[in-house]
Parts: sequence; C-alpha cells; structure tokens
Amino acid sequence: MTLNSLFNIQHPILLAPMAGATTAELVVAVSEAGGLGGLGAAALTPERLRRQIQAIRQQTEKPFNVNLFSPVVQDFDPAARPGPAALALIEQYSRELGITTTPVLESQYPDPGEQLAILIEERVPIISFHFGVEPEHVEAIHDAGLMVLCSATTVAEARHLDAIGVDAIIAQGSEAGGHRGTFIGDFRQALIGTLALVPQVVDAVSVPVVAAGGIMDARGIVACRALGAAGVQMGTAFLGCPESGIPRVWQEQLLRSSADSTGVTTAMSGRPARGLRNRYIEEMESLEEPLLPYPLQYALSASIRRAAIEQHNPAFPAMWAGQGVELLQIQSAKALMDQFIRESRDLAGQLARDR
Amino acid sequence: MTLNSLFNIQHPILLAPMAGATTAELVVAVSEAGGLGGLGAAALTPERLRRQIQAIRQQTEKPFNVNLFSPVVQDFDPAARPGPAALALIEQYSRELGITTTPVLESQYPDPGEQLAILIEERVPIISFHFGVEPEHVEAIHDAGLMVLCSATTVAEARHLDAIGVDAIIAQGSEAGGHRGTFIGDFRQALIGTLALVPQVVDAVSVPVVAAGGIMDARGIVACRALGAAGVQMGTAFLGCPESGIPRVWQEQLLRSSADSTGVTTAMSGRPARGLRNRYIEEMESLEEPLLPYPLQYALSASIRRAAIEQHNPAFPAMWAGQGVELLQIQSAKALMDQFIRESRDLAGQLARDR
Repeated sequence: MTLNSLFNIQHPILLAPMAGATTAELVVAVSEAGGLGGLGAAALTPERLRRQIQAIRQQTEKPFNVNLFSPVVQDFDPAARPGPAALALIEQYSRELGITTTPVLESQYPDPGEQLAILIEERVPIISFHFGVEPEHVEAIHDAGLMVLCSATTVAEARHLDAIGVDAIIAQGSEAGGHRGTFIGDFRQALIGTLALVPQVVDAVSVPVVAAGGIMDARGIVACRALGAAGVQMGTAFLGCPESGIPRVWQEQLLRSSADSTGVTTAMSGRPARGLRNRYIEEMESLEEPLLPYPLQYALSASIRRAAIEQHNPAFPAMWAGQGVELLQIQSAKALMDQFIRESRDLAGQLARDR
Repeated sequence: MTLNSLFNIQHPILLAPMAGATTAELVVAVSEAGGLGGLGAAALTPERLRRQIQAIRQQTEKPFNVNLFSPVVQDFDPAARPGPAALALIEQYSRELGITTTPVLESQYPDPGEQLAILIEERVPIISFHFGVEPEHVEAIHDAGLMVLCSATTVAEARHLDAIGVDAIIAQGSEAGGHRGTFIGDFRQALIGTLALVPQVVDAVSVPVVAAGGIMDARGIVACRALGAAGVQMGTAFLGCPESGIPRVWQEQLLRSSADSTGVTTAMSGRPARGLRNRYIEEMESLEEPLLPYPLQYALSASIRRAAIEQHNPAFPAMWAGQGVELLQIQSAKALMDQFIRESRDLAGQLARDR
C-alpha cells in the first residue's frame, strides 16, 4: 500500500514531529501542501495539546500526525540527584547568564497516558511514537479507527514493531537530528546510516517504511524512494521555515554549521540525541560523574537553556540538528514543499534518461 | 565529466580496494564487467605489489585502481610500548589459541614512498589514497599522466582534496566498513551518513564524487546517483564473492550479522575502522590504559589474528564490514556486477514511471 492511500495524502513527505519546533502553522503548511504535518507533543500539557490540535483543525481539513515520545512514563529513579560537578557547572552557567536558579528535578513532561487519551478522543488520524510502543496502545489506537506509527533504528526494532501491528515504520538513520528512537539495546550500536538502514528494514517488514535522517531536498527524497522507502520524514529541512517555532539563536547556528558540528550526546537530556555541539554538551560530557537519567538531565538545565535563548547565547541551548544541516534553506514551508515535489519529479525523470 | 569518460569504464561502479580482500581475481572480475576494480595494496611488499599488478594486467586490459592508505609513512612513536593489561590479554589469547607469541612491535606496512614509485613506474592508471594525500604526490602522479583519487569523510576534507587537485573524491559515509579515511579532525565528528554526506560534498567541490558506505545493491546505487554522486564504491558487497580473499570465518560471520553487530573501533589497528565487534575488540576497548598508535596496535595482534583465522575462531580476527551487511549476497563478482547494472537500469525506469 502506498503512503498516499494509507494516510490520504498527496505526497509521501512527512514533517518530523519535533517537540518545540513544530508549531500548528508549520503542521498546517505541510499538510495543506499535500504532505503529512506532524506535531511534536511530548512536552504539551493536556490543555495546550487540545488547543494545538484545535488550532490545526481550524486551518486545515487534511490529515496530520501527533507524536508522543512514548505512550508510557519513561522509567527513571525519581530519587536520582545530580553529582557535585554537574551542579557546580549549572551554578557557574547561572552566574554567567546573570540568573539565580535552583534546578527543578522532576520530569517536565505531562503524563503520556493522559495525552494519548486526548489524541484518541480528538480523533487525531495518525498517532506516532518515538521510543517504542506497547501492543496495548497499538490496539487501543486501532480500536478507535486511528493509525499508529513508530520509529525504529535497527532491523530488530523494525521487526518488533511490525509484529505488534504498527501501520508504518519510520526507519530513523543515524543522520537524524533530535532524539534517537532506539528502544532495544545500546544506542551506540544503533547508529545506522539511513542509506544502509532503509533497504534492510524494507526487506524485513511487511508494512510501509518511511525513511528519516539526513533528507534535506529532492535528492534525498528520490534517493530514499530508490532505497525502497514508501516515503520520507524530514525534520531539520524545515527548521529554516519562518513557521518553525525554534529560537533565533538556534536557527542562526544552524546556518553556520556543518555535519561535523553535530554529535549524538546524552548530556543534554539524558537520552541520546543529535544536535549542534556546544559548550554545555562538551563540559557536561567531560564530567567524571554519571549524568542524570532522562528526563531529569533535561530538567537540570531548563532555566539555563531558557535564559540562554533569551540572551541569544549559543553556548547552552539544545539545538537539535541532523547531519544534512549544510543543505538548510530559509524558505516558507509551502515553498519548500512545492520545491521538493517539483524537483523530485524532475530528478526521477532525469535518472531514467541517464540510465 | 562522467566517471565513465574520466576512467574509461562502462559503469561507474568501483570495487573498494580492501587490503587483504581484493585479490587480483576480484579486481579483474569487476574491471572486466565494466566497473573499476581496485586493489588494496597498503600491506603488499614491493615484490608482491609488482606481481599483483602483473597478475591483473595478464587477465585484463581494462583500467583498474591501486590503493595505498597514505603516500607517506604514518606518524607514530616507534618507542611506544603496549600497556601491561594489553600484554596480559595477548598472552591469555595466545594460551587459548595454543600458540607462543612475542608481539612484534613494528609497522607491518612497507614504505609507501617505494610503493608509490612502483605504481607510477608500472603506470597504474588510477592511484588512490585513503588517509589523505599531499599536493606533491598529486603532482607526481599527474606528471606521469595518471589519475589520483582520495577519500573524504567530511565536507572540509573534500574541499581540501578538491583544492589540491585530485581527479575525483570518494565520499566515505559512516556506514562504510574498514578504516575511516578521516584525515582532518576527530573521527567521531566525521561519522556522517552517506545520505547526508554525498549531496553536501557534491555541492562543495568541482570534481566528480564517488559515494561509498552502505551501498549493497541496485537500490543503493540508484540512491547515490539521485544524491548527485557520479558513481559508487562498494566494498562489503563484494565480500561474499568467491574471488574475494577473505578467510572463511570472516565470511561466515558476515552472513550471520546485522548492521548493529558492527562498530567503529580503534582497538583493532589503532586507527578507527568499522568491523564486526568481537571479543578482541570488546576486551581491548575496556582496558583502562591507552592503546598503541596505528599501526603498532595492529602489529600487536598479528600472530593472534593469524592463528584465530587458521582455527576458524571469530573471537579475535579483524572482520571489517559495513552497515549494509545484512544485504550481503554469495555470488560471483561477475554475476553481482551484471545484477547491479541490470537492476539499476530497471529501478531508475521504475522511479520515473512512479513519480
């Protein structure tokens, strides 16, 4: 089955649902252009989640996707405390930024069970997860007549998702910006390049595969179709859109970065994620004490990151980015989508003529 | 300029010149099928190098490539000595394998200056390097009317190679098996997926770009053409050929491995390289003492690796492999090449029809 018929869209291009970057406006622009908009909702309170869904619905009748990192609360030891060296760094950063801060050591994420109930109640047509999903949630979503997607970073994860009945699988290659979706085994072994991951996943599963990681333009889109992907999911490519919700300092840093400015780190949130390396990451990584588990490590720096963004200081914020970052364009989402669609057609035709 | 006209070949498919795996027979088979065979010659003594070149020439009149890791002796401290824990491991492995061994701590590689002189004297049409190349060597090769290729793992490296005048650049993505070609900066930052690396390099340089890393079949070949590559270089894909020179234990392990069984390590040779993780790598990596520099770390295990291969023991050999390993086919090189060429044509046509 094609993604177009599965999702009722015109072009198999998915906006990666990036928490903090996918505004309702960006979701709407991608869906209206014939792709599938995606809202990253992990951090949205129930009230904000409902308002965002309604804002999307007011502007488009097209399908869209809402993503939760996971349908269940992430395991962590609530008694975990930062080590003295991490606390000393936070205090030093606070002084430099001129703020007073007491790190709040609790998850900044709402209860995903409550969030999922809202998505089902609001009949969000496509619900996606990034850190794995349980069979009971797949069943609950299917029982409501809705569809469920989940990311896989290895063939083993993809086989597992296929077995529990997800409707399509996002094959997240190592190039991808933001959090790694790895939910089985060590993330270091699961950093598989998109070009290698996609055909191996396609051969291993029965459902459509959406390629993700490093796709920035028509070249990446057509390449992923050649690899056997039913569609693509693009995140970093949309971070240059005025509709994206990212702070100016993040966008400006993206424009002066290259693939080797990014790295996968657990120092920012406690889970592995790819972003622009900065002083916060370098110094946290160099500590000789264990970091906090996700999401506490993220909570640790919340006020630091907020102040740094306000002060336009790139040393401390989380600035997620994929390895295709040098190909970033500053364009409206509609113009980007139109370009992707037109140039993909042209490129496919050219490959056939050159063969 | 197309690679076909640049190299005088029929199909822009390059055999990765894998030291220890590319026999004269494999080189000949790929060149005779219309691609560009490549001999990995870093470890060949002057006499063996000449014999191999002559063996290739006796079987084909087509062009081929010979690769040296570097045109200059790799910097290392000849006074470096293994730590006590590494020596204890080597002694333990020796006992397990029933051999007596005194690690020889000297480079196992011949003088690359002498090797290069032979390549020029023998008029090898295409000479390639993997750990960078100096302008004087590019000039010497060009003065002889021959061509020079070099690998790049970042856009910065590719720009450097373009500036010093190489004829084409191998963009080596992070999926690639074997040694990383990184010659500027930290290899950890230079693990860029092929899908992201290739278009960024294509946009940055003036010469043809050959994509490498994770390409195992027509899907990968057409994908890389879509990314803007002038051709592809495939290594792991040929390790299932009877013509390849790899030991049986390595080939059998490849057939039971997946992308997440591979990893990039410096523990085998002292330089970063991707291969199947085994006990040797795990235990060497876990030592709390510094490893030896390349190539001394490789020399350290020479007799261990040799004995393990003879005994068909996968715990100790270097078994380089890329992340596309699950797509490995057991086929003759000619059958593989014919399949790649035929299926690439079909796939390009299909993409154009589906667009």
